[in-house]
Amino acid sequence: MLTLDDDDGPLYLRLYRRLRGLILDGSWETGTKLPSSRTLSEELGVSRNTALHALEMLIADGLVQARQGSAIYVTAAAPKPTDLDRHPSLSRHRKPVPFEVGWHTAEFFPLDKWDRLQSKIPAEARSASLYGSGPGGWPELRQAIASYAGAARGLSVSADQVVIVSNTQSALDLVIRLLAEPNDEIWMEDPGYPIAQDLLRLNQLTLVPVPVDGEGLNVQSGSRQAPAARFAYVTPACQFPTGRVMSAGRRAEILDWASANRAWVIEDDWEWHAHFGKGGAPRPLASLPGGERVLFLQTFNRTIFPALRIAFLIAPPDLAIKLAELSHRIAGEPSVPTQAALAEFLERGLYAAHLRATRAAYAERRSVLLNELRSLPPGFEPHADRAGLHLVIGTPSGVDDSELAADLRSKGIECSGISEFSTGNACERGLILGFAAFTPQQILKPARRLVRHLQALYPHGRR
Amino acid sequence: MLTLDDDDGPLYLRLYRRLRGLILDGSWETGTKLPSSRTLSEELGVSRNTALHALEMLIADGLVQARQGSAIYVTAAAPKPTDLDRHPSLSRHRKPVPFEVGWHTAEFFPLDKWDRLQSKIPAEARSASLYGSGPGGWPELRQAIASYAGAARGLSVSADQVVIVSNTQSALDLVIRLLAEPNDEIWMEDPGYPIAQDLLRLNQLTLVPVPVDGEGLNVQSGSRQAPAARFAYVTPACQFPTGRVMSAGRRAEILDWASANRAWVIEDDWEWHAHFGKGGAPRPLASLPGGERVLFLQTFNRTIFPALRIAFLIAPPDLAIKLAELSHRIAGEPSVPTQAALAEFLERGLYAAHLRATRAAYAERRSVLLNELRSLPPGFEPHADRAGLHLVIGTPSGVDDSELAADLRSKGIECSGISEFSTGNACERGLILGFAAFTPQQILKPARRLVRHLQALYPHGRR
Repeated sequence: MLTLDDDDGPLYLRLYRRLRGLILDGSWETGTKLPSSRTLSEELGVSRNTALHALEMLIADGLVQARQGSAIYVTAAAPKPTDLDRHPSLSRHRKPVPFEVGWHTAEFFPLDKWDRLQSKIPAEARSASLYGSGPGGWPELRQAIASYAGAARGLSVSADQVVIVSNTQSALDLVIRLLAEPNDEIWMEDPGYPIAQDLLRLNQLTLVPVPVDGEGLNVQSGSRQAPAARFAYVTPACQFPTGRVMSAGRRAEILDWASANRAWVIEDDWEWHAHFGKGGAPRPLASLPGGERVLFLQTFNRTIFPALRIAFLIAPPDLAIKLAELSHRIAGEPSVPTQAALAEFLERGLYAAHLRATRAAYAERRSVLLNELRSLPPGFEPHADRAGLHLVIGTPSGVDDSELAADLRSKGIECSGISEFSTGNACERGLILGFAAFTPQQILKPARRLVRHLQALYPHGRR
Repeated sequence: MLTLDDDDGPLYLRLYRRLRGLILDGSWETGTKLPSSRTLSEELGVSRNTALHALEMLIADGLVQARQGSAIYVTAAAPKPTDLDRHPSLSRHRKPVPFEVGWHTAEFFPLDKWDRLQSKIPAEARSASLYGSGPGGWPELRQAIASYAGAARGLSVSADQVVIVSNTQSALDLVIRLLAEPNDEIWMEDPGYPIAQDLLRLNQLTLVPVPVDGEGLNVQSGSRQAPAARFAYVTPACQFPTGRVMSAGRRAEILDWASANRAWVIEDDWEWHAHFGKGGAPRPLASLPGGERVLFLQTFNRTIFPALRIAFLIAPPDLAIKLAELSHRIAGEPSVPTQAALAEFLERGLYAAHLRATRAAYAERRSVLLNELRSLPPGFEPHADRAGLHLVIGTPSGVDDSELAADLRSKGIECSGISEFSTGNACERGLILGFAAFTPQQILKPARRLVRHLQALYPHGRR
């Protein structure tokens, strides 16, 4: 019987370390079949998602391999610990394979222009940028973001409401450290974004899973479950992972709730740029009446390149000062020369041009994928109307999307099930396929394999 | 009677905001004399240092001005709030003036070579660097730091013990978030580094001030006050602010204590590079027997340029993995292209050359300053034998170094008193003068003014 140490850290890491230990110390020899994610989940009382995550990390380490359906076997018989210890911690990000979720590409980024931007920054500012910025970030970047947020997202804010941080996690971390007490309740979209959830748990918040439906987070359900929650975390521009856009009605409801309860709505402007239909993403909550209860987060790490490490947070002026001060006291601002370059990138219109170019490329990749999916078995429905850098395929009722995704992964087709991101039970089912990081050429073959597999599994469909 | 709101944030910020509010809302008109730091300290029960810090922020804002001795007057009669609200938060770092403490210069940094480094990174690595690094940082940089820490500091570590972070505060924040419980005790050097203290208080640790003497932190005193403390924070290479180097005896004592009590010694390798005598800084605690209880922090932000935002932490392997994972979950790693450039900078020997060049320049600045201080009144003793980028001038007994420093500041000579960094009472007294950020030309005049002022104040010395 497997047990988990009373160790710290999130469950999936504890499970991963435990399993890795059993392989490295030779308890499980080469060829040993690992317990399935279902067994691990039942024996240890962890979620399927947690078990899958831990198993995937072992696969990434090369310690185990998926064979025959979803069965996973030990491949490495206690290799030298020194080599292995090095592996998980001393690595670049591996390249994603189709259709892994959460990746985008930097191949369209005009790196040559970017490199030349430093030389276009006035010498005095360049030299000043070496010495750092005050709290909140480099003034020129805060100003450029305020202008851009106005033009692109209809947000009317001044530069001192903009706080520059490294990524949306660090923004969330600041907000929680400034405003929350341990065990404060926060509404979380269910299904929802696991990285944000992990960070909120790390900060000892109580997560209240609120179901997402066709209109986004169900505010009435949240109000019933936890009317006095202090926070709500939402992705209204493009809900992760369903790709739904929050309806106008729900937008008004959540702002009314926040205003009546003096709660804070944390609006993660996730994939606002990945709307492929007409009109783009609707205006953010932060720009609507009642928006003074909204803390708005947006990242450049998913539109420029992941390692840039610049995101921003927009807050009411008094709170923005406090968040900027707190950030300054802890990690400080991100690399200032990089901030200065980004300010130039925005001001010269290079960012807008880059977004247009990537959106066109992503739209092509998406339509190549959609085209290959025309012959899915009945009951499998690609939702071309949704937003985001992954495509959602609705699965027939009665099909367990997480099991199906695990099965496909074991056959070398990377994808995820929506319910893998759910902590509750009632959640839309479907497969999600990331497409943004793969060329049309890279998409074609695995898309065809996916269709063939599903056709073989469900020859007459399943409705 | 002035009171402080029951607001969050450190005291000096709360006091600053309160005073600023009184000026901006017109309660205190132009010409109003502010309460002295002593009065503020007594009325509000805050330390003199806190009051001074708040007043200095108001001076930096241009809202008040020091005139006639140390008296401070309101200069701005309620200017338009929009302009002012912008001012403190939307600013570059102002330029330091002699002899402000805590500044160094980037003027010797080979910016042109640095800019060209990106083009020397192999295309594949450059492109991979856009996608980020795994937990812990860019592998090439971790490797380069492990080699460099071996060569420069005698630390024998592998790359996976190196965790790349933004600055020493964020390293400290990670350590505390991983290892500490609220109210855990930590030994802090007294006098000591206020930015680290602020961060530790933010994380709800209980700070135990342990006196610093000629050999560094007095371990026996720490053992008497808080034998079971879980942490000790020390700057053994160059104690802040006294510039003392921890003796070999004390190094052995603190490691013995940590090992016997399973405590963690957090070794901030502060100004290890600023030893101007023969031999450089002694080997760090982390390299000595018992070093497995040491977490070692060093920053590049004070040797390359402040806005670089790269520092590192060295920990035992199992802890390094956890710290790297935690960092990855929160803020993630610093800008990866910058990490890649720094790896090249280290590997090509450019860093070592840069350190040699800056050390030579700093040594010159220091000797120019020392030379001007030859005619100080009796009892004022420049300590040429100490390390660091500021010079310590011992003050005669009976002189309150903080009051003297405030008096000098009010006359336009920026400097600090050692006791301003002390939370206790028994602490060495002296003036400290930063010299690294100022050219010999910039140093001469204010040094002469300082000498003249002290000569006028103490015409016959004071012993």
